[in-house]
Amino acid sequence: MPFNVETQYVRFPSLLLDCGITLFDLQVAYETYGTLNERATNAILILHAFSGDAHAAGMSLETGQPGWWASMIGPGLGIDTDRYFVICSNVLGGCRGTTGPSTVNRQNGERYGMNFPVITIADMVRLQKMLIDSLGIRKLLAVTGGSMGGMQALQWAVAYPEAVAAAIPIASTARHSAQQIAFNEVGRQAVMADPDWNNGDYYDGKPPARGLAVARMVGHITYMSDASMRDKFGRRLRDKDAFGFDFSVDFEVESYLRYRGSQFVNRFDANSYLYITKAMDYFDLAQGKASLAAAFDSTQARFLAISFTSDWLYPTYQSLEIVSALRGRNVNVAFCELRANYGHDSFLLENRQQAEMVSGFLKSVEEDLARQ
Amino acid sequence: MPFNVETQYVRFPSLLLDCGITLFDLQVAYETYGTLNERATNAILILHAFSGDAHAAGMSLETGQPGWWASMIGPGLGIDTDRYFVICSNVLGGCRGTTGPSTVNRQNGERYGMNFPVITIADMVRLQKMLIDSLGIRKLLAVTGGSMGGMQALQWAVAYPEAVAAAIPIASTARHSAQQIAFNEVGRQAVMADPDWNNGDYYDGKPPARGLAVARMVGHITYMSDASMRDKFGRRLRDKDAFGFDFSVDFEVESYLRYRGSQFVNRFDANSYLYITKAMDYFDLAQGKASLAAAFDSTQARFLAISFTSDWLYPTYQSLEIVSALRGRNVNVAFCELRANYGHDSFLLENRQQAEMVSGFLKSVEEDLARQ
Repeated sequence: MPFNVETQYVRFPSLLLDCGITLFDLQVAYETYGTLNERATNAILILHAFSGDAHAAGMSLETGQPGWWASMIGPGLGIDTDRYFVICSNVLGGCRGTTGPSTVNRQNGERYGMNFPVITIADMVRLQKMLIDSLGIRKLLAVTGGSMGGMQALQWAVAYPEAVAAAIPIASTARHSAQQIAFNEVGRQAVMADPDWNNGDYYDGKPPARGLAVARMVGHITYMSDASMRDKFGRRLRDKDAFGFDFSVDFEVESYLRYRGSQFVNRFDANSYLYITKAMDYFDLAQGKASLAAAFDSTQARFLAISFTSDWLYPTYQSLEIVSALRGRNVNVAFCELRANYGHDSFLLENRQQAEMVSGFLKSVEEDLARQ
Repeated sequence: MPFNVETQYVRFPSLLLDCGITLFDLQVAYETYGTLNERATNAILILHAFSGDAHAAGMSLETGQPGWWASMIGPGLGIDTDRYFVICSNVLGGCRGTTGPSTVNRQNGERYGMNFPVITIADMVRLQKMLIDSLGIRKLLAVTGGSMGGMQALQWAVAYPEAVAAAIPIASTARHSAQQIAFNEVGRQAVMADPDWNNGDYYDGKPPARGLAVARMVGHITYMSDASMRDKFGRRLRDKDAFGFDFSVDFEVESYLRYRGSQFVNRFDANSYLYITKAMDYFDLAQGKASLAAAFDSTQARFLAISFTSDWLYPTYQSLEIVSALRGRNVNVAFCELRANYGHDSFLLENRQQAEMVSGFLKSVEEDLARQ
């Protein structure tokens, strides 16, 4: 049963960032699903991945499109909106309603472009905290998300221990590895190699469509698995009985990547690509700590970590690092590696096991809280 | 003990390609190491990978550089030049002395550029056969190479069964997978997205340096393993004590990739990048056959297939596919997956196990031949 949703907006006067710069007059785009109970104890914050947005569930009244986690969030689903009040906001630095490099800086009337300060996952979470406070929620029942959303979930549990009862990082990591940084850096270099990027000053002209498309193509390969690409495309040719012996499209996989790359430009800002990938690369929960375990010293949350067998971009060992660190501080943590063929994308796709696992975990967190 | 070598050149009048076009007046760059015996039975043909060249061993008198497989080929090494006559040539479509898109077409005095016909692995092997014939060698003791070199080795054994006593495909495949095609396609799109590419007509101006650099960066990530990147770079910062909060280089891995990408432009032609990756993507030994096994119906060679545990670009299962197909035709095939941390690059790096395995296999092939 689809339900209609509208994106809402809220403004905040200022935010002091990790880099030392203060951003003024910020906007946050967010959506909510379900109803906040009287004691405000049933709120769950959904944290989106790299190219996500505030529209996580339901049908958008603006676009008519379902949310990016519509299979997971809704009445009777894994995150049950008959039971929980669910919030999702676009991240700081994004391009889908929340302040980012494509936003007009009201101080000078110009879009930030590359004058936008470099942000971190912690900065994103600071702005989310302001949103949650503004909604009158003192403690979130849970924070959850996949990939970069999982990083934010971890950051929430560490930065605001009193405000998080449970955290569910999915297909995520406590710190970006060299390989993850490398893939992001290739994407950034592809964007910046496009002359239309023009040092980020392209809003009055053509966006760097070719560079961003190449970056997105690399991304798509890393989000799928070798096996899922074989199942979906194999060596099938596109609109041809034989090789073309030219450089137009031969294989279906080429056609898919080109299409996905070129479409991405319509919904994503190239400068946001740079800033958000940089925030992911900077993410290291252990930074400045004696160990990753030490990062969890003050957390009061319970954890559920989930990874997927075929996810080679955020492999299971990274989730196990989180689990080890939490166990090292005797934190209550459950872990499951789910069998799934779809690579890193697995967390986004309909997955009954994931839904049941999250749903069961949330109920046990509620019971814990009721006993306290 | 380094030995000096010089690249040699030979010309051939014409070559009919798989696409139906005939190339005229071709040049092949090649090197040889060791001495051909009287009966011409000790010749081994080395087949290079994507960005390799004819300079496989020894020290180049032109450049003072060691060959790309210097750890494997030389007096007393895995491929012992005291015992064998070793030949390596630059592939058709290359840019290191053999006819390719950057070559001047003598018919009109202009460089081929994108008028160069699309070539295949089989075309590369046809030209190599002409070279081997010109050297007076009727049967090669062995053909071997890693990655695209392994594809050529397989093609040799299938296309010229009487001319190959043994084939050693290393870290290779009988057909490019969707993921392998996808990574190549991203590289091609990166090159072609660079305005300096100019539809391949850049030889009188600037080469598409930025696009080719991005393509090479993607390549380098796929050649390494997650673990080897962690060991080599981890999250170490470059020339900094803290994050720069800008888009210059923060991490060592970024610096490495940018350097390798920018250097590649000095030694490789962007159009060759397009043509050679396309040839790899077209490669499918089973094409037009009832099965991969059927492709080996006429082969008379013995095989040794080698893969590496950490190679995720040409994973072990692809070597096992070759082994299964060969066993399906009762062909003598040995297989070993070697433990190595360096990903796809493992075959290029000094590897005692690989050297011993190849050396032992070559001796047993010699003994077989002596008994015949």
